[in-house]
Formats: sequence, structure tokens, C-alpha cells
Amino acid sequence: MFNIGVDLGGTNIVVGLINNNYEIVDKLSTDTRRERTSSEIIKDIATLCLKLIEDNNIDMSNISSIGIGSPGTCDPIKKIIMKSANINFENVHIEKEMHKYIDLPIYLENDANCAAYGEFKAGAGRGSNSTIIITLGTGVGGGVITNGNLLTGSHFMGGELGHMVIKANGRQCACGRKGCLEAYCSAKSLVEIAEKVAIENKDCILNDLTKNDLATSSAKKVFEAYDLGDKYIKKVIDEYHLNLSEGLINFINIFDPEIIVLGGGVSGRGDKLINSIRKEVENGMYTGAKLKCELKISELGNDAGLIGAGILYSRI
Amino acid sequence: MFNIGVDLGGTNIVVGLINNNYEIVDKLSTDTRRERTSSEIIKDIATLCLKLIEDNNIDMSNISSIGIGSPGTCDPIKKIIMKSANINFENVHIEKEMHKYIDLPIYLENDANCAAYGEFKAGAGRGSNSTIIITLGTGVGGGVITNGNLLTGSHFMGGELGHMVIKANGRQCACGRKGCLEAYCSAKSLVEIAEKVAIENKDCILNDLTKNDLATSSAKKVFEAYDLGDKYIKKVIDEYHLNLSEGLINFINIFDPEIIVLGGGVSGRGDKLINSIRKEVENGMYTGAKLKCELKISELGNDAGLIGAGILYSRI
Repeated sequence: MFNIGVDLGGTNIVVGLINNNYEIVDKLSTDTRRERTSSEIIKDIATLCLKLIEDNNIDMSNISSIGIGSPGTCDPIKKIIMKSANINFENVHIEKEMHKYIDLPIYLENDANCAAYGEFKAGAGRGSNSTIIITLGTGVGGGVITNGNLLTGSHFMGGELGHMVIKANGRQCACGRKGCLEAYCSAKSLVEIAEKVAIENKDCILNDLTKNDLATSSAKKVFEAYDLGDKYIKKVIDEYHLNLSEGLINFINIFDPEIIVLGGGVSGRGDKLINSIRKEVENGMYTGAKLKCELKISELGNDAGLIGAGILYSRI
Repeated sequence: MFNIGVDLGGTNIVVGLINNNYEIVDKLSTDTRRERTSSEIIKDIATLCLKLIEDNNIDMSNISSIGIGSPGTCDPIKKIIMKSANINFENVHIEKEMHKYIDLPIYLENDANCAAYGEFKAGAGRGSNSTIIITLGTGVGGGVITNGNLLTGSHFMGGELGHMVIKANGRQCACGRKGCLEAYCSAKSLVEIAEKVAIENKDCILNDLTKNDLATSSAKKVFEAYDLGDKYIKKVIDEYHLNLSEGLINFINIFDPEIIVLGGGVSGRGDKLINSIRKEVENGMYTGAKLKCELKISELGNDAGLIGAGILYSRI
């Protein structure tokens, strides 16, 4: 049997054929053209799903379900996309709309939760019963699985892991509060903090690496400056590691997960990132270094959301 | 049918007969005398349970289970008290030990989780599907129920809500980290902070309220000074409210619970406490004031742990 995953984004719609081993067999995509109405966009999703099935010569009876990962707030029980910042969806009954074109069970979940669920079932968290996924991207997002269950919250708004204040009255966060984990540990925040240091210190290597055009700096370049031994950036990255550690220790004390998976752009740094924070995290845990909480890098990367959407049927 | 709850503490052992309405019908207690061996203490627990049944003229066939709330780390599946700081229990198989005296199903859970579960099922959280309980006592403890499930963590160490850092590099916490919620919002921390202010400012009313013996100060007296309009203590309590709000907003962003219940000594302040933080909490939530998360004061108080232990059988 196969399932179809849909990753509905502000830029692209991606649909994937997922087999029973939680692997992507084939995928198709199209531009979202997000200025369109929800009906137009959903028609495209359905068309893409049907084409994917046809392309792969699969009989409809061998497709179990379609799972949709959507940005914004989703009600997975009523199958309603309540609100999305990136696309013009407001209280869209996605199951009803999809059933105009395809008669298959429809599952729905927020995209960040889909990515977390994918990583939990098929990626770095597989085999565990509790995993926390933290995405260090433009923002800091994530998802939580405890007792094998995806934590959604009573209004489907839980899991906003990036908006945990770790420094009251600290750096301004886009959410309105000051000192959120996101305000220190997103790729965007890291770049902003490093840029400021590079402006203040003309001999900071980041100026060279960006050919004196700091607008072209990125988390990758900041880590490059760090690896080259720049003393200013060393301070920035040391602080980054400490702040990330504070956040992770908080999550361990709250959830006691088996595994924490780091995803998003910054996680491209791989084991270097984990090796830089492991000791700090172990020493900070409430019970000392006694808990076995594995720190891992995302295995599914950008596919986590698509796979997670495709296997939503397996939720308990 | 009835169940028996056991609240095993460092000072007292309390056993309670709990009816199907989750009410305490009768209770008995004895000194723990914690210097004793686990066998001696467990014999006392069993003897007390049997006496409670006899005193109430209940046939053994009308008792469904015994639930035990124990300090320290408990494995509720294997029914083992792994470690306790207050009593000499280490890897004690409580079910096996209890079965030497009474042939009833035995349930086990950490005492803080029992209190949270009691409040969730029978107290201020009843009727909800997700409730967070935060105990503002000597320390800051708590418990989390999501999707009707008690969050225990993969090593039964989850729910250490007091040990979430809200101010990195802030006030020293007993756990070793700096800036934990507990270091600001426990009754102990509040008193320490207020005492320091009273020492520095001789005209601070707290000096009068304690007859210049600050060793006799308490959270209650600190709030008394606040109510009397003392300008120094006003600052202390304003900060207390802000820090508590930061913590609660973090929990809302992470869990999106229906209800947050405040327990412990400081919660004796009742609605005044909630009224002082509600606006701050609502404004800080990730989605603005749109979530409906009720803030409530504990209804079961000190009985929460006993009732929660007694109804552990109802866990899902």
C-alpha cells in the first residue's frame, strides 16, 4: 500500500508517494501562486495527487490516504485549515474540498508538526517513544512527541518551542516578547548578531567573507568565520552554543525525551554543532548527566514534512 | 467501589479511602520515621491501609486498587521506587513488597505527578483534556497532562517545570543552573529576595512585620507588606509577578493547555495572584490574547497528592 503526502508551502506545493517503509517513491511539485483562492490551490493539490498516482501506474485501491501538511493553524480532527499567514486560507474545510476530486481519507496537520512527526517515525527519532524536534531555520520551530503522541495542544497551537523566553528582557523577538530562544538561536538572529559585531569591528573576518557586503552574510558564512578562528565571531558562536544549550536543557527538564533532533539550516553544521553543546547540555540537566538524551541531527532534512504528512494516518 | 491512595512523605505517611467521586471518605496517618528501612516503612503503609478498610467496614472485594505517591523517581510500569532523596528507598519493588500484606492491584507514581493528576481529574483541572499544574512552594514543581495523559518522560523524570531557565545567568538555583523559574518564583526565593531588600532598607515594612527578625519572614508576610503598600516590597512582588508570567507564557507556548492551575503556598494568595498576572500572560502568548487558557488556583490543596494517588488506576 501507498500513501500520499502533501507539503503545502507558500512557494511550492509538493506531493509525494510514500511507501510502507516511509520512503518517498516519487514526487511532483508546482508553484503555489499563493495569491490565488483556496479552491484554486486545492484543485492543484488534487490534480497533482492524481497525476502522481497515474505516473506510477498505481491502482487507486492501493492508496490508503492523503496527508496534508499546511502552514498556520490546523484542526486535524475537523480537517480545517483555520488560518495561514502565507496563503489565503481561512477556515478551509480541506477534507470536503479534496473529496470533490479524490475519494480517499484525508489527514491534516500543521507543517512543523508534520516535519517533527516524519523525523520521529522515519528519521532521527525512529524507534523512540519520545522525541523533540527543534528546527534552527529562519525562525526556531519544532514539534514534540511524547508517549508516541504528537503534542498539538488544546487549540492546536502547542509546540511553539522557539517562543520560550530564556532571557527575560533580552533580545527582541518577532513574536513581541523579549529573550525568546528564537531571538538567539534562529539562523536569522545569529546572522544579525554577527553582522552587528562585524560592523563594529572592521578586522572581523566576516567582512572579508562577505566582500564587505554584510547583506550577503548567512549562518554558513558566520560558522566559516568561526572555523577560521575569528576572535569576534568566536564570541558570537560561543554565546550561540550556550543559548542553544539553555534551551535544550529546558526541554529536557520539561519533557525528558529520549532524543532531541536538530533540524533547519543551522543543523547543516552537523556533528560539530552537537559536539559543541553536548557537555554543556549534559551538565545542566536537572539530574546531572544521568539522563540518556541523545542529541541528533535531522536525517530527513527538507523531506521530513512531506514524509510526515504522508504517514499522518499512523498517528495514535 | 473504593480505592486507596497513599501519600508517602518524608515526614508522614497518609492513606486515604477514595470513593468513585474522587472524594476522600476517610484518612489515617502515621509518622514516616524516615531513618527506617523500606521494608519497615512499607509494612506500616500496608498496616494503615488494612486498618482504614477495617475502620470503614468495607469488604476487601469492594476495594479496587491501592495507588502510591512517592517522593523521588518512580517507575510506574515496573512499580519500582528507584531513588528518593527524603527516604531510604533505592530500587524498591513496591508492588512485590505490598503484596506480602495485601493482594490488591498496586499503582505507583511520583508524588508531584500524583498531585497534578489529582488536580486534573478531581480539582481545578477537571473536565479538561490538558492541564498544567505549577506548585509554588518551597521549590517550584508541577505536572503536565496533555491529551488526558500524564507526561512522565522517557526516564520518568519529565515535568521538572521549576527548572526551566527564564533568565540565563540569572539567580543561582539549587539545581546548579542559574536563572531557573524556581530561583525566582518559589516561596523560598521570594522570601530570600525580599529579605535582602529589607536588610538594605531599614524602613521596609517587612522589618516591622517580622519584629526585626527576618528569619521569621514568610511568603505570606512578604505579600502582607505588599498589601500594606511598602514601596520596596512592591518592586519585589511586581518582579515576582513578571517572572511568574514569563514562566506561564513559556508553558502556554509549549503546551497550549486548556487550564493552568497554581498550587503550593504562594497560591494561598488566591485570585489576587491570578489577577496580578492575567493581563501580562494574555498579552505575551504567541498568538496574542487569542488562546483561551484559564488560570486557576488549586482546589484540592494538600489533598491533591492523596486523591491523585488513589485514582492512578484511571490513568490512560
